[in-house]
Amino acid sequence: MKEKLPHVVIIGAGFGGLHATQRLAGKPVRVTLIDKRNYHLFQPLLYQVATAGISPHEIAYPVRAIFQRQENFSFLMSRVQGVDLERKQVLTEEGQVPYDYLILAAGASVNFFGNASLEQNALPLKDVSDAVTVRNHVLRMFERASLEPDLEKRQAFLTFVTVGGGPTGVESAGALSELIRLVLRKDYHDINVESVRVILLEAAGNILTGFPKELQDSAQRALERKEVEVRLNAKVANYDGQTLTFDTGEVIPTCTVLWSAGVQAASLMGKLGLERAHAGRIKILPTLQVPGQPDVYVIGDAAYLEEDGKPLPMVAPVATQQGKHAAINILAQIGGKPLKPFRYNNLGMMATIGRNAAVAVTLGMQFRGFLAWGVWLVIHLVGLIGFRNRLIVLINWTWDYLFYDRAVRLISRE
Amino acid sequence: MKEKLPHVVIIGAGFGGLHATQRLAGKPVRVTLIDKRNYHLFQPLLYQVATAGISPHEIAYPVRAIFQRQENFSFLMSRVQGVDLERKQVLTEEGQVPYDYLILAAGASVNFFGNASLEQNALPLKDVSDAVTVRNHVLRMFERASLEPDLEKRQAFLTFVTVGGGPTGVESAGALSELIRLVLRKDYHDINVESVRVILLEAAGNILTGFPKELQDSAQRALERKEVEVRLNAKVANYDGQTLTFDTGEVIPTCTVLWSAGVQAASLMGKLGLERAHAGRIKILPTLQVPGQPDVYVIGDAAYLEEDGKPLPMVAPVATQQGKHAAINILAQIGGKPLKPFRYNNLGMMATIGRNAAVAVTLGMQFRGFLAWGVWLVIHLVGLIGFRNRLIVLINWTWDYLFYDRAVRLISRE
Repeated sequence: MKEKLPHVVIIGAGFGGLHATQRLAGKPVRVTLIDKRNYHLFQPLLYQVATAGISPHEIAYPVRAIFQRQENFSFLMSRVQGVDLERKQVLTEEGQVPYDYLILAAGASVNFFGNASLEQNALPLKDVSDAVTVRNHVLRMFERASLEPDLEKRQAFLTFVTVGGGPTGVESAGALSELIRLVLRKDYHDINVESVRVILLEAAGNILTGFPKELQDSAQRALERKEVEVRLNAKVANYDGQTLTFDTGEVIPTCTVLWSAGVQAASLMGKLGLERAHAGRIKILPTLQVPGQPDVYVIGDAAYLEEDGKPLPMVAPVATQQGKHAAINILAQIGGKPLKPFRYNNLGMMATIGRNAAVAVTLGMQFRGFLAWGVWLVIHLVGLIGFRNRLIVLINWTWDYLFYDRAVRLISRE
Repeated sequence: MKEKLPHVVIIGAGFGGLHATQRLAGKPVRVTLIDKRNYHLFQPLLYQVATAGISPHEIAYPVRAIFQRQENFSFLMSRVQGVDLERKQVLTEEGQVPYDYLILAAGASVNFFGNASLEQNALPLKDVSDAVTVRNHVLRMFERASLEPDLEKRQAFLTFVTVGGGPTGVESAGALSELIRLVLRKDYHDINVESVRVILLEAAGNILTGFPKELQDSAQRALERKEVEVRLNAKVANYDGQTLTFDTGEVIPTCTVLWSAGVQAASLMGKLGLERAHAGRIKILPTLQVPGQPDVYVIGDAAYLEEDGKPLPMVAPVATQQGKHAAINILAQIGGKPLKPFRYNNLGMMATIGRNAAVAVTLGMQFRGFLAWGVWLVIHLVGLIGFRNRLIVLINWTWDYLFYDRAVRLISRE
């Protein structure tokens, strides 16, 4: 009996896939969620794992645990290699999975814009393993610097560059500067923390593109108060692991370049033979369906949809809302009812710079400083899955705020 | 001025090295602690990392953070390659470190007793990365089993063997069985948890060698109540990753063998040209000095010292007490005072089997069941470094106890 129910396959356990799955609970469908990882990652706090503030498991929640009680749910941990749209089969490393309806919610990967030197030597920040790599690397630079007698080499160990002035870059640079100036300062007595440079590079003429000008300036001043050097109109041409070179020929000797300057749709999106737009995103209809493929939906970062002449941004709220919407439309499709076009309910945007400092814009109002920071904290705490994670992250944040500490200063791989 | 003070070099940031360093705080010496990792590991709870109960950073505390306020302290993160006893130099990957006094506290490594098949295919449990590997492996076996149609292969995925009936083996087997029967049961609806086998193998005629007979039997019954199959007088001859073979020729098809059957002194101990005893431990005098090397002390698992005709066990309390004692004797040596022989103050031993079940013997009294379990919890909680770690582990234990949960069910490497 159950076998006869329509089979909805969802690729990707990010915000989009998660909310689509949840919306299908108790409905007359079978749901199979496929992801190469066994956990949902709360990406907005990934930079805090990279800067030793929280532990990976506090922002990574097992998919099976989330849907323990959802009876129509199955999970397949596997890498998806392609989709046979003709025969309606998802091709995975564990074999083929037939679907009646497909939701592609595969998310995004880092975009180095074809620059091989950056791809090889810069550190991305997209997955848990990236964040742990960054954490290990930053701490290792301090260990190396503490042993290095050559002043120039030492300075390269102690120069940390973040490329990209979007929210991720701003948050990473702010958190890195605080980790160094408030915490590591106490661990490395023989390193003069004043000599450490944290540099944020942005190719455009302002950071936080899309924010109101006043908030952009406010965020930049907050970064500078935290001793982050902000450089605008700075375009990176090359990075060989030792020296970063600008398009002007200027160089910065540095052993650390974090790359937060671009994302593109997951590579799977290029293997489907579907029409793609900017950043490899797949063009979809307002119903979130792929043109000519009424049973295939694409949502979140992997999807390209314009609203009022502008593409929807690659952010978590879009993915979340589209996940729910795709589920609703599939249920309508099954029931023979008309599908509804998606409308993004934009609640605003925000970025935190560090202790007591953030910027936010919502409902036409602007917030900055302590108030925005408080709102940021609450929203991100509530966004975590599981009461225990919220409690433990809250304890960690409180502790770090009071004692200028970071719990996870571990170099975990050798 | 400070440069003229005697230089004490301590190799290893385990219990022995840590307590030696602490005991030298504020004394007229310079202390350099060398370890290949940047953290002290609370090894007694490592099996809980392996069974998804706690996160690595809760039992791994940064060495520099521990000694932030100890002014005569330096830390060198490096692998030690040897010691030039003649020229009084420690040879590290980062160069030579001269010493006036040396404390070798390098600990132990896993002992496969020369069995190459086990060394290659069994999973040890000695370091954080071992524990994370075991956690990933166990969860992956469940993912594989959930996809496997062949019943025999599926059973091999769902058969978990632990070799070694000492405290680590007993605790691992108990925790593994609880993880599976209380927690994973809820995650994998399509796996019949009754078919899962957790087997504890012990080569001797009883588990927990050294404990009173009643507690050995009590622990065995407690394990069996938790559905662990305990097999005594069981000697493993070979394990190829698929099939475990006993010396009798009997086989168990299994994809998981955890190895807790033996330890030996760290490999560095074999490179010093010093006289060694059982398990590669270096023979020392009751003052903890190496015979003929009055400036070199060996402590903890790496040292061999008999008391009342029996070698001191390779356990944390011995290392802790010897660490303090070595520091005291070095200070006496510097002050031209007589050295004192070490005497182990044996407070007893304990092992936990799981929820509400443990065995302990102390001051000639025996404890078992809920009481012993409660004492075990308190002792291990207090043993953690840092108030925050204690608080968070306490919250995690309470949560897991109440809700039959484990927070860290992540497959973290691919």
